[in-house]
Amino acid sequence: MNPVEIIRKKRNGGVLAPEELQAFIAGYLAGDVAEYQMSAFLMAVFFRGMTEEETSGLTRVMLHSGEVIDLSAIPGVKVDKHSTGGVGDKVSLILAPIVAACGVPVPMISGRGLGHTGGTLDKLESIPGFRTRLSTAEYREAIRRTGVALIGQTETIAPADRRMYALRDVTGTVESIPLIAGSIMSKKLAEGIDALVLDVKSGNGAFMRSDADALELARTLVGIGAAMGKRTVGFLTSMDQPLGHAVGNWCEVVESVECLRGRTIPDLMEVTYVLGGAMLWLGGKAADIEEGMALCRSAVWSGRAYEKFLEVVRHQGGDTGVLEHTDRYPAPRFTAELVSTCAGFVTGFDTLAIGMTATALGAGRRRIEDVIDPTAGIHVRCKIGTRVERGDILAVVMAGRGEDLPPALERIAGSITIGQRPGEPGSPVRMMVDETGVHPWNTPVQY
Amino acid sequence: MNPVEIIRKKRNGGVLAPEELQAFIAGYLAGDVAEYQMSAFLMAVFFRGMTEEETSGLTRVMLHSGEVIDLSAIPGVKVDKHSTGGVGDKVSLILAPIVAACGVPVPMISGRGLGHTGGTLDKLESIPGFRTRLSTAEYREAIRRTGVALIGQTETIAPADRRMYALRDVTGTVESIPLIAGSIMSKKLAEGIDALVLDVKSGNGAFMRSDADALELARTLVGIGAAMGKRTVGFLTSMDQPLGHAVGNWCEVVESVECLRGRTIPDLMEVTYVLGGAMLWLGGKAADIEEGMALCRSAVWSGRAYEKFLEVVRHQGGDTGVLEHTDRYPAPRFTAELVSTCAGFVTGFDTLAIGMTATALGAGRRRIEDVIDPTAGIHVRCKIGTRVERGDILAVVMAGRGEDLPPALERIAGSITIGQRPGEPGSPVRMMVDETGVHPWNTPVQY
Repeated sequence: MNPVEIIRKKRNGGVLAPEELQAFIAGYLAGDVAEYQMSAFLMAVFFRGMTEEETSGLTRVMLHSGEVIDLSAIPGVKVDKHSTGGVGDKVSLILAPIVAACGVPVPMISGRGLGHTGGTLDKLESIPGFRTRLSTAEYREAIRRTGVALIGQTETIAPADRRMYALRDVTGTVESIPLIAGSIMSKKLAEGIDALVLDVKSGNGAFMRSDADALELARTLVGIGAAMGKRTVGFLTSMDQPLGHAVGNWCEVVESVECLRGRTIPDLMEVTYVLGGAMLWLGGKAADIEEGMALCRSAVWSGRAYEKFLEVVRHQGGDTGVLEHTDRYPAPRFTAELVSTCAGFVTGFDTLAIGMTATALGAGRRRIEDVIDPTAGIHVRCKIGTRVERGDILAVVMAGRGEDLPPALERIAGSITIGQRPGEPGSPVRMMVDETGVHPWNTPVQY
Repeated sequence: MNPVEIIRKKRNGGVLAPEELQAFIAGYLAGDVAEYQMSAFLMAVFFRGMTEEETSGLTRVMLHSGEVIDLSAIPGVKVDKHSTGGVGDKVSLILAPIVAACGVPVPMISGRGLGHTGGTLDKLESIPGFRTRLSTAEYREAIRRTGVALIGQTETIAPADRRMYALRDVTGTVESIPLIAGSIMSKKLAEGIDALVLDVKSGNGAFMRSDADALELARTLVGIGAAMGKRTVGFLTSMDQPLGHAVGNWCEVVESVECLRGRTIPDLMEVTYVLGGAMLWLGGKAADIEEGMALCRSAVWSGRAYEKFLEVVRHQGGDTGVLEHTDRYPAPRFTAELVSTCAGFVTGFDTLAIGMTATALGAGRRRIEDVIDPTAGIHVRCKIGTRVERGDILAVVMAGRGEDLPPALERIAGSITIGQRPGEPGSPVRMMVDETGVHPWNTPVQY
């Protein structure tokens, strides 16, 4: 294997054979392909893309660069959900207990916040005592006992992806659909899943800002799943405004608990029910997605989903007392309200700016070594279409440092557009993608 | 300066400001920009290209990364020639003494063989005692004394180019016109020249196989020269067959000596006279290129050019005895003749294959540590249009190892096409490129 020949082949638009991808990546892990050769290759992939077969081949090589967990001893069809990341996206916290309460095991390996987006691990770790670092044995045991495991990527999973991801981050090669798809799927397939539901975000708070890019990513992800023999369904959902109201860590846990106790936040619960319905359908507990959605709803209304959440938190070492009595949790040191200076209707958000503001407040990391402030964040009190009067509270900012409040208030004020007409909020779930193609999604959701 | 932002800007098709290029390359030399970031950047340039201003900016930064030799104390307009490389291209050896004999100083920093192409330094070093490693002071002194210096790139010249070139070689980023042009011009401008004539090769033995690519390179090189305030003229010349007959090192010196003594090899001398005419014009010794060509011719016919060659070789430590009596030079250990098996006309060459064969025989390097065999090479006895009979000698192969002969003979046999019609040899000099654009070149050459 000559690394330069492989780089040149991809650079010239050639299609790499599985053995070539295997040799190149194995050479990289062995040190025979230098970092500067891998980065040139990644940039060539950025420009030339990859065929479906190449993307599947890449995923397979990255998947088998590490441990692939075998959950076949655990009964049932194991189904996970993956989101491409957004602002206020706490769906995993609500969804996993709902689906597990309906009898489908959920092995879920999540990530930390990235850029302006939050991470499920950071949110879970705001619950005192909650352990996201489980061994493979503990992970299996958690799924067997509670039907859910909520953990972080271990050292043994997809080491090739971990190294390539770190390199992409410093070489301007993050935004490539085959590389994004290969990275996501190699980690997800290592979890031991049988099927997967994807939440591909589109909009001004997502990594894919246009529906066209988001659809291409969704199709690529679904194609890899199919090539690897795992049933995979994707949904294109809106990230043109924060999902729900809370943006941060502990505040998102609180909002999730409220939803599990029966509070309805329409956009958040619509996304949750659609994804959950698809998971139950793929898990063999429902004849179709609609029936799965109904099962999810009754798991919430009956209290079974909330009980499941407490069970999962307890099993992973978390303090359920603060979940039952959220007022016992330390309050943010500083809070400030953003008040509307005019009357009208909320017509749009700069969702990226809201996510960046939450990160700057301490809800995310700007550098890998930054420590998260679990109480920092933003509570957005309005949605697209909300009628506001002069003096209404648009958002509440929560901070650990008082000096962070004024710039945060200013930035959020600039990220909410108020106009004189109500405008169209649009549906939170826009399209469905499966092996057969892209389908409009217009199934009404009952809460 | 954030290296990732600069990579991403170029990747997205942005135009980099001179300060950004300066900061990125200075950061690379200082170790703040990693090799893997530079290679990703180079691949982004491969795909996105560079504007004229960016290419000039890049050249300026690479030029000023090292020593820029000042020759202003030496009287006269100093003019050099650069060729993009070909097979049998010994023009520099004939041209430099001709032009110096006409009173224009020639400061010439040359390279070694690269891939299938020969290098002027390797050819010169086949002359016993010839020193191509001169200090800057010796280089100046040689030009002052003889009007010519023929040396290799020193450690102090364009170190950024040296590091970037080595990186391009192992990351599949060689074939990029702005990068090629910046590399050439940063080295040439460091020599202390006032003007430059470019020989841009086009054809199946050149790095640019099509006229379109060669013209784009020529235009880019001329544009950089203009931006740097150096008068620059380029010629697009044919590399669809070896130039002259000899391909190797010592055999090319012998052919050069024969030409300086008055032997006419039409394609070789046409290229030499056109380039020389342009050098004398730019050097202020001729009113136009045609007059310069006439001056060059009389320098050859009068014997002044040959005397100048002997003077230059003597000054740089070379043995002029073997130049005066080339039969005293060690003969190649093995020679073999390629005989035509049919009658007809030579219609074409696979010039790349001939160059590769010469390299394999020991005339070039396959690895940096390979030692050159000065007597190895090929003497091609025919040109496009030559009428051959069955039994005629098409080429003579010269080798240091007997086992190299059969594969070489076979490869050369396969690289010469013989047909039943004479075909069109075409003109060796095809077009001229200056600041005003591309001009057809059809000035007849008198020998």
